[in-house]
Amino acid sequence: MLLVVKSGGQEAMPEWQSLYRALLPELEVVGWDDPALDPARVEYAMVWEPTPGRLAQFPALRVIMSSAAGVDHITRDPSVPAHLPITRMVTPETEERMADFVTAASYGIVRDFPMLREAQKERRWDESIVGRRASETTVAILGLGNLGAACARRLAANGFRVKGWARTHKQIERCESFAGDERLGECVSDAHIVVNLLPDTAATRGLIGNRFLEALPRGASLINVGRAPQVDLRAVVESLDTGHLRSAFIDVFDSEPLSPDDQMWNHPKLWVSSHIASAVSRKSKARQIVKNILADRSGQPLEHVYTANLGY
Amino acid sequence: MLLVVKSGGQEAMPEWQSLYRALLPELEVVGWDDPALDPARVEYAMVWEPTPGRLAQFPALRVIMSSAAGVDHITRDPSVPAHLPITRMVTPETEERMADFVTAASYGIVRDFPMLREAQKERRWDESIVGRRASETTVAILGLGNLGAACARRLAANGFRVKGWARTHKQIERCESFAGDERLGECVSDAHIVVNLLPDTAATRGLIGNRFLEALPRGASLINVGRAPQVDLRAVVESLDTGHLRSAFIDVFDSEPLSPDDQMWNHPKLWVSSHIASAVSRKSKARQIVKNILADRSGQPLEHVYTANLGY
Repeated sequence: MLLVVKSGGQEAMPEWQSLYRALLPELEVVGWDDPALDPARVEYAMVWEPTPGRLAQFPALRVIMSSAAGVDHITRDPSVPAHLPITRMVTPETEERMADFVTAASYGIVRDFPMLREAQKERRWDESIVGRRASETTVAILGLGNLGAACARRLAANGFRVKGWARTHKQIERCESFAGDERLGECVSDAHIVVNLLPDTAATRGLIGNRFLEALPRGASLINVGRAPQVDLRAVVESLDTGHLRSAFIDVFDSEPLSPDDQMWNHPKLWVSSHIASAVSRKSKARQIVKNILADRSGQPLEHVYTANLGY
Repeated sequence: MLLVVKSGGQEAMPEWQSLYRALLPELEVVGWDDPALDPARVEYAMVWEPTPGRLAQFPALRVIMSSAAGVDHITRDPSVPAHLPITRMVTPETEERMADFVTAASYGIVRDFPMLREAQKERRWDESIVGRRASETTVAILGLGNLGAACARRLAANGFRVKGWARTHKQIERCESFAGDERLGECVSDAHIVVNLLPDTAATRGLIGNRFLEALPRGASLINVGRAPQVDLRAVVESLDTGHLRSAFIDVFDSEPLSPDDQMWNHPKLWVSSHIASAVSRKSKARQIVKNILADRSGQPLEHVYTANLGY
């Protein structure tokens, strides 16, 4: 049983090997660029942004496992054998951490942290930066998968009014569900905060651009913790500059790591974070991978399998 | 029936007068510095930092009403007639806004917002700033009055482990209660976050100094939304600089507004806000004052009366 790993670079391999040894001693774990790797023996691959063409070179490969929630970094390689199941990384810790981050950002918006920090930078005592109350704040969550649902539940427990939009209707307690393209406008029209957690599909790419932002009420804020291609950051910056958008928390970018020269670092109303919203421990990831390897060995269904026709 | 108002300055008077007219038309409302004020007719006073000696000059005064939660700005004037009841400003909105702010700051600490902002300032992509989980975070709340209890409930609903310390034992669901000086150490010894909401009394002044901070676990953070005199800010800055304290959210200061020259503005790990944690609308304050005036008129007990021997 051999698992090839491309996640965290060569320097992460000793940690991966020690984690897997503790969980499943009979599993051999080899790095993606290790010269000792025998392609013919690879049965499982745990990957982030695999080099195009490489996965097709493992004839015995049984399951491709993304080391993150998204899988588009795998599926965009046309040579990936279509019959192979691809799994997404969704652990209980992923959901919990995502709900933590989205709630942290939502409260930061409610209490106007970006404006408070600007006042502090300018040494300005400003008693008018009182924000609003959580209980009078509407949050629209785009994407109601495991992560979106976890955020919806946490925000509702804090008294936020929660609306959610997805391809199909979802039943989540205290979350008003909107389904389909024709109801997107209705979902976000009175939102003080929009959270993007949509999967990266042809249908969602570029969705959050000028037109979308203009349809939000003046003073709304954006949290992007989903995938980068859905959000036109140039349009976000323009909207922040006109004062239509009040603030934005952006955790994902088209090109990561974000270059030190990028304009995004420099905007006082745009808070950059380094794709850490739902960052989970390697231990938690290894546990999920082992669970699926054991399921595969015993002929049980895999968890969090990507469905090509849905795009997630 | 005449109410004298010292809150928000002369420019706030038109708003106060219009609010009170809507709530209780028969109440006359006059500004503290209005030359037309007849001291002999004042029955009620709504005040923030009243000029020492002035309250004693109203012979018909029945109730002194603080326009904020604290009353020490009134009681430090020895000429205030001891027989007069003093009420604290505690509205449902005060509690809700305080819980909002403390939860916002707690999540900001959990997700290491101060470190994320420093990384952004330095244009540094840093995937290691992942913070911790709310569910593995212990918060110790010092002071379990209405405000502390509201914060405890909100934090517990978010999965934080909540401990609380007060003069006497308090029964709050999902909050472990510690009472009396001898149990303070036990309450804070494993706290990742300490929230100060103690009243300003002789017993609490200077409590949060070098010795207290050293007793916290390394990496703890402080939120002060109570009163300024309990916290030795010099000791806080020292502790931030050695790395013992990880971050601090400070909303109250010995001298407000904080001078533009003050060192406090300048510390990357110390987030300054302008005494806005529980800032409530004037409407909400006027409603509470009218409630107590009507209670006094009809011989009913006043709400939120200060008790001199307790100090709050």
